[in-house]
Amino acid sequence: MSSRPSAAGPQPGGPRPGLPRVDHASRRARARDYLADADVDALLVTAPANVRWLTGFSGSNGQLLLAAEPAGDVLVTDDRYAQRAAEEAAGLPLVLTRDPVGHAVESLGGGGSWRLGVEAGAVSWADARRWHGRLVEAGAELCPTEAMVEALRVVKDDAELARLAEACRITVDALSWLFDAVVAVGRTERELATALERRFVDLGADGVAFPSIVASGPNAAVAHHAPTDRALVAGDVLTVDAGATVDGYHADCTRTVALGHLDARLVEVYAAVEQAQALGRAAAVAGATGAEVDAACRDHLTAAGLGDRFVHGTGHGVGLDVHEAPAVARGSAATLAPATALTVEPGVYLPGIGGVRIEDTIVVTADGPPTILTTAPRELRVL
Amino acid sequence: MSSRPSAAGPQPGGPRPGLPRVDHASRRARARDYLADADVDALLVTAPANVRWLTGFSGSNGQLLLAAEPAGDVLVTDDRYAQRAAEEAAGLPLVLTRDPVGHAVESLGGGGSWRLGVEAGAVSWADARRWHGRLVEAGAELCPTEAMVEALRVVKDDAELARLAEACRITVDALSWLFDAVVAVGRTERELATALERRFVDLGADGVAFPSIVASGPNAAVAHHAPTDRALVAGDVLTVDAGATVDGYHADCTRTVALGHLDARLVEVYAAVEQAQALGRAAAVAGATGAEVDAACRDHLTAAGLGDRFVHGTGHGVGLDVHEAPAVARGSAATLAPATALTVEPGVYLPGIGGVRIEDTIVVTADGPPTILTTAPRELRVL
Repeated sequence: MSSRPSAAGPQPGGPRPGLPRVDHASRRARARDYLADADVDALLVTAPANVRWLTGFSGSNGQLLLAAEPAGDVLVTDDRYAQRAAEEAAGLPLVLTRDPVGHAVESLGGGGSWRLGVEAGAVSWADARRWHGRLVEAGAELCPTEAMVEALRVVKDDAELARLAEACRITVDALSWLFDAVVAVGRTERELATALERRFVDLGADGVAFPSIVASGPNAAVAHHAPTDRALVAGDVLTVDAGATVDGYHADCTRTVALGHLDARLVEVYAAVEQAQALGRAAAVAGATGAEVDAACRDHLTAAGLGDRFVHGTGHGVGLDVHEAPAVARGSAATLAPATALTVEPGVYLPGIGGVRIEDTIVVTADGPPTILTTAPRELRVL
Repeated sequence: MSSRPSAAGPQPGGPRPGLPRVDHASRRARARDYLADADVDALLVTAPANVRWLTGFSGSNGQLLLAAEPAGDVLVTDDRYAQRAAEEAAGLPLVLTRDPVGHAVESLGGGGSWRLGVEAGAVSWADARRWHGRLVEAGAELCPTEAMVEALRVVKDDAELARLAEACRITVDALSWLFDAVVAVGRTERELATALERRFVDLGADGVAFPSIVASGPNAAVAHHAPTDRALVAGDVLTVDAGATVDGYHADCTRTVALGHLDARLVEVYAAVEQAQALGRAAAVAGATGAEVDAACRDHLTAAGLGDRFVHGTGHGVGLDVHEAPAVARGSAATLAPATALTVEPGVYLPGIGGVRIEDTIVVTADGPPTILTTAPRELRVL
């Protein structure tokens, strides 16, 4: 592969039949409204998911120069991606250069002082230092912005919800097939992970949202266990945490099952986690904060004496990134709005014994309980 | 998947039978020697590949606090990874916190001024701004360092060379199988990419080094084409650029083949690229610069009137990252040392017609030509 870092991130695929069209220009218009608030003349968008959300371009090297007027918007990439950019971001002027800041200086630096916003969370300190020097030379200023486009991405439009739903449908279908037809004593964690990920693609996914977690027996006590060659034995608990991607959108779903008779402590833990997860989902209504959803899960587990075994946050937003705003954790003041997609995934881990995690991807509704996109059964299943 | 960004990057897998053991402590000792040069009391290593290289830890959230004395070294991660870190980085003290800078302040801030180095290329500007504020409060200083650990990683040790060789062996085997048994008129690019990537894993790879490039017919004119549903037709040129990973190490190999009778221009281009690639490989001797290797390829293509169709650099270092130092491109003053692993991958692209790229992963030797790890045949193959 040639020459420049290429994230293993969003995979392309071109337009998919049957999914609603995306209106990137209106997204750019909404982002443009924030330029004045941020007191910048233009924003250089570099976070890959933000570039994709605003333009449709899915390559590994692309930047959007978002200008005060739509006519000033430019997608910057390099020769390797000239054709893909022209197809995916049709109608958006294209500049082929490895130096997006140089292009910004050229197009904005016509005399007078000006301010260029950059995404401080996506730009390295090294780049910021270099760019700062160049802008000072050009009589301009480099201004850090944070979470501007990310904030817009929290509430999903219909095109996004359709893609998330399709990714979750594939994920649930594949998990169901895995538990029905593949999981058995003697199979290894790695075999199961590989089979599941292949099934995603066979069912129409573009790829895998993240390296699948397949954790059996005592390994299930490790929240982020990587699949090993451990073979399943009778009495194992088995946690599978995985997701498919469709058009860049990530599903995220976890189910825990039993291979035959389970340790009594794990049966108890399962009941507590199942109940905590239901409470967390029920709390995910419009107007609630991320902290409140987290508390709904956590308080139940704490009351069950398991609070110190719930070692991570309750969930996270999900979309073009597998982890995005809002945080669903202690201290998260983010208020849930309708059409926000998030996960609810409490887990309890007993070192040396095993663990249980149950996770759904859900969407907040205008009034009433959330829509559950990962509709796989949640009651304890004994295989 | 729970709560925090988890790169789709290095996949774990635990120790592999048959591969030489890695001595992480001696790598840390070599990195420690540079602390004084950088005028820092400790370095917070955050780039995932650097953390893995120095500790063995492969999780998505881990930082190494590299101290002036070995006894001060600490691996920082969160509860999700407690067990994996203890296994992969056995012997290294572990601190479980989401706040590595807080830990650094605690352990280094015992009065008097001190300086903490951070990897400016791996830390976001947003984090740098926040951390700077906290260190000033603590009477300390945040110091940007660049390419310190990356420079050490350029020259591979025996453990690394064995892993690279294994990843390349699997890649070549799978490519050979693809061309022998799978490629045929009617197959789609996506089918070929999926089949190849599955073969990697079936042959023992941990995963895929990057999303495979499978480009047929006119799509082969796109250097970084993403596989589509285009079905192969007779007369197509077909470029496949892919690699397996083994224990975190990336292979990178490209071959271009013909499906029957090829456009005469492409036959000529193939001969030119094949010759350019051979010249590039031959130039990759100890003491040569990256720019010299690039020139060896580029000058040949320029003389053939194809210079302006070679739209990318000649290659890049390869190891725990698929793209790492040294750059093998115009302007690269990096001098090749023995045991440096790099790619040589000239390509020529004719819009609307097709293209040719040939790429090997090679290792510089002490005297003489480089060792070629991707030993697949290079002459034009007509399927």
